[in-house]
Amino acid sequence: MAPAACSGPAPTPGVELRGRCSACRVMAVVEYDGTDFLGFQRQPEGPTVQGTLEETLRHLFGREVQVLGAGRTDAGAHAMGQVVAFDVAWRHPLGELKNALNALLPRSIAVREVETVPEGFHPRFDAVSREYRYRVFNRPIRSPLEERFSYHVPEALDVDQMNAAARYLVGIHDFASFGRPTQGESTIREVRRALWHREGPHVTLTIEANAFLQGMVRSIVGTLLEVGKGRMEPSAVQEVLEARDRGRAGATVPARGLCLVKVNYR
Amino acid sequence: MAPAACSGPAPTPGVELRGRCSACRVMAVVEYDGTDFLGFQRQPEGPTVQGTLEETLRHLFGREVQVLGAGRTDAGAHAMGQVVAFDVAWRHPLGELKNALNALLPRSIAVREVETVPEGFHPRFDAVSREYRYRVFNRPIRSPLEERFSYHVPEALDVDQMNAAARYLVGIHDFASFGRPTQGESTIREVRRALWHREGPHVTLTIEANAFLQGMVRSIVGTLLEVGKGRMEPSAVQEVLEARDRGRAGATVPARGLCLVKVNYR
Repeated sequence: MAPAACSGPAPTPGVELRGRCSACRVMAVVEYDGTDFLGFQRQPEGPTVQGTLEETLRHLFGREVQVLGAGRTDAGAHAMGQVVAFDVAWRHPLGELKNALNALLPRSIAVREVETVPEGFHPRFDAVSREYRYRVFNRPIRSPLEERFSYHVPEALDVDQMNAAARYLVGIHDFASFGRPTQGESTIREVRRALWHREGPHVTLTIEANAFLQGMVRSIVGTLLEVGKGRMEPSAVQEVLEARDRGRAGATVPARGLCLVKVNYR
Repeated sequence: MAPAACSGPAPTPGVELRGRCSACRVMAVVEYDGTDFLGFQRQPEGPTVQGTLEETLRHLFGREVQVLGAGRTDAGAHAMGQVVAFDVAWRHPLGELKNALNALLPRSIAVREVETVPEGFHPRFDAVSREYRYRVFNRPIRSPLEERFSYHVPEALDVDQMNAAARYLVGIHDFASFGRPTQGESTIREVRRALWHREGPHVTLTIEANAFLQGMVRSIVGTLLEVGKGRMEPSAVQEVLEARDRGRAGATVPARGLCLVKVNYR
């Protein structure tokens, strides 16, 4: 997705100049360090990523600009590839919009890519899958340099067993044991892959699903860590799934190890 | 350096019990995220790593304990292998001292290893070399996830040219152009290796010297980045060295990319 001149919806008559538009829907890929945010979604209690993006756009455009997001990441969770969309009039090359936003945004948020999209595009409803990464720091002594972006587990972890357990989650299942739906909707989701990988002291889960329930990745990680510590058999994950009971899954791990890596569209 | 029972200096008569001592000099390898510290060395203006270690030891031992350090890292600089020493009476296995300190220290500091050393050991004066790492994040758009531990350089960098320039620094030279001595001492230092390495967007300098002048690594990095950007020939580094003039080196880069990796002893 290279920065391109504004080339989205048909321009309003009179502004058909190259690289300009009077009302573009812009899609942006956003990276953030979520440590100091109360999550993605705007709320009155404190700073959020959505709120900060909207303030920055208001500052740049001199009017309220609503930001739509692909997913509501938790307080303290990070993103390398959150996708947002907003409607603006921009009469310069789009790369300059990216530069302007990155100059105005706090250092904890950056816009990695921008492009124009059809006006009906919605980053959440049009997404076909989301990919998250959860990073565990697995060494006896905690690491101050890893503290912000991983969860420290001092006990030895059997990654093969964790992968054996993760395989039970792949496919279309009712994940009611692992998370809550946003508003009374179905708890059935399709997990397309779930794979643990060890590299030195880092033990990382990469998990992709069509969509996730609230708290689902952190609850899955907590459960698979029980398997990794030898406190649960891999096959017990199947029983947890079938129970459809939030009380059966392992403890929810901290948000700081969680990162929304990518949102996929058709 | 595995945790060992207190086995250092000869115990005071009457306390010759295994794994105990009445006055041990303990050496500890310390890791820290320096972002929120005014450097290693204790000072009244705000929190420092030395001050925090001394407060934690006072809390644990109920008396003042002086902490000696191998090097005075700058405000905002990090360490994976800072070495400190202090004198305490500890009547339990040393591994328990490590655990107690890690339980009491803030999350930004951790003790990775402890061992007893002869009472004359000094982490600074007995060190034969120090190894630092400086991390540059080299991609057009800054990264919030890299912000804390690297310096963002958006321009393309020619790492081969930077290594050609770094070779002029290896050896025994007067580094007066690159830093200040602590107290009117000599500005001659021996750089044993200085090598840049690229891995994806990370361009990292590993540099080892018998000792460093104040600001020396950050001034060297600033100068070598000028070479990497094509604004200076590698051979010009030789001229900067020979000038013995602080005004000739490149700009000093931010401390957040700097990490004291290791201190070596005979």
